[in-house]
Amino acid sequence: MNKRGFFITFEGIDGSGKTIQSKLLFDYLTSKGIDVILTREPGGTNGAEQIRSIILTGSVNRWEPITESLLFLSSRSDHWLKKIKPALDNGKIVICDRFQDSSVVYQGICKGVDIKFLNYIYENVTNNRQPDKTFLIDIEPNISISRSIARENSETRFEKIDMSFHEKARESFLKIAKQNERFTIIDGNKPIGKIREIIAQKTLDII
Amino acid sequence: MNKRGFFITFEGIDGSGKTIQSKLLFDYLTSKGIDVILTREPGGTNGAEQIRSIILTGSVNRWEPITESLLFLSSRSDHWLKKIKPALDNGKIVICDRFQDSSVVYQGICKGVDIKFLNYIYENVTNNRQPDKTFLIDIEPNISISRSIARENSETRFEKIDMSFHEKARESFLKIAKQNERFTIIDGNKPIGKIREIIAQKTLDII
Repeated sequence: MNKRGFFITFEGIDGSGKTIQSKLLFDYLTSKGIDVILTREPGGTNGAEQIRSIILTGSVNRWEPITESLLFLSSRSDHWLKKIKPALDNGKIVICDRFQDSSVVYQGICKGVDIKFLNYIYENVTNNRQPDKTFLIDIEPNISISRSIARENSETRFEKIDMSFHEKARESFLKIAKQNERFTIIDGNKPIGKIREIIAQKTLDII
Repeated sequence: MNKRGFFITFEGIDGSGKTIQSKLLFDYLTSKGIDVILTREPGGTNGAEQIRSIILTGSVNRWEPITESLLFLSSRSDHWLKKIKPALDNGKIVICDRFQDSSVVYQGICKGVDIKFLNYIYENVTNNRQPDKTFLIDIEPNISISRSIARENSETRFEKIDMSFHEKARESFLKIAKQNERFTIIDGNKPIGKIREIIAQKTLDII
């Protein structure tokens, strides 16, 4: 591991299984004695979690899309500067559940905020450091939604959005994944253990 | 009053008297039967006030300057879209205590955040609508600080910043005021009633 660290993100629609898979990869790398941290967005630091709580409480349309984007990017800025960047600078592997691609998909493609605007801010915050690898767990929304509803601590507000929104998010993730070499698309219908294996192997190949 | 509305902002260092003067102008215009609203930053809407509370609680250096900037701009975005723009679109006069110039001075000039970055976000949020008139109340920091400390509800965290910071903020406000025709610089050492008169007359001349 060099001093650049290695930055892995998980993306996908809610209920795709990315949260559990990011945890499983963390456990796997830890069991191998590899220095790794696991974090999530929005959130990941005290400040960012506080911003997260503002974003996620209240009605779905509480914030205008551009305001919501700026809140997500505030949260990402705190998270990046206080947690992710220092860890990478120390040569660690960082696994993050959701990152900038989620902003591009949800606020950008789905809600119409200018993607150049979102990426310009991101570039200024991170000095345009991109994830080294992104796992997109792809799944049909009707399956992911039923999983989300079954979860105890699900963010129920997400389920209130209509199905076409989730369809568009799924398609958007696939579209950007196909345009970008850092992505690996995983079939989220496979059993959890099988997905875990694929991701673990892929990660060992590249870190 | 045309349908463009008229947007007046007050700027200056903490304790300059801008808050009381914005209130006095509001009272004056209201007494003349003019349709006017008074608001402030950070804050001004429920959402923006919630963001304000996150920005202003905790230690002075809780947020990195770029994160703090994004939080102020999130707050401004909510405030602009939900309160200021609709009022201007209805042809009202809007008086706002602090606005984008404060971000340029405090986060930009004083804390080193790229001013182009701050203004790019502002332009995207507001479609680059600038205030029609900005009153800068100019005062020496040693006077303003003693006023702030005397105030019951002062944001005491501001007083913890050293004097050179306030000096730089004052100079920065003066600098941008001199570069921009929309500013009127007011000598904050004059008696409150005299300042009120100057501002009221200037406002009647232009609205």
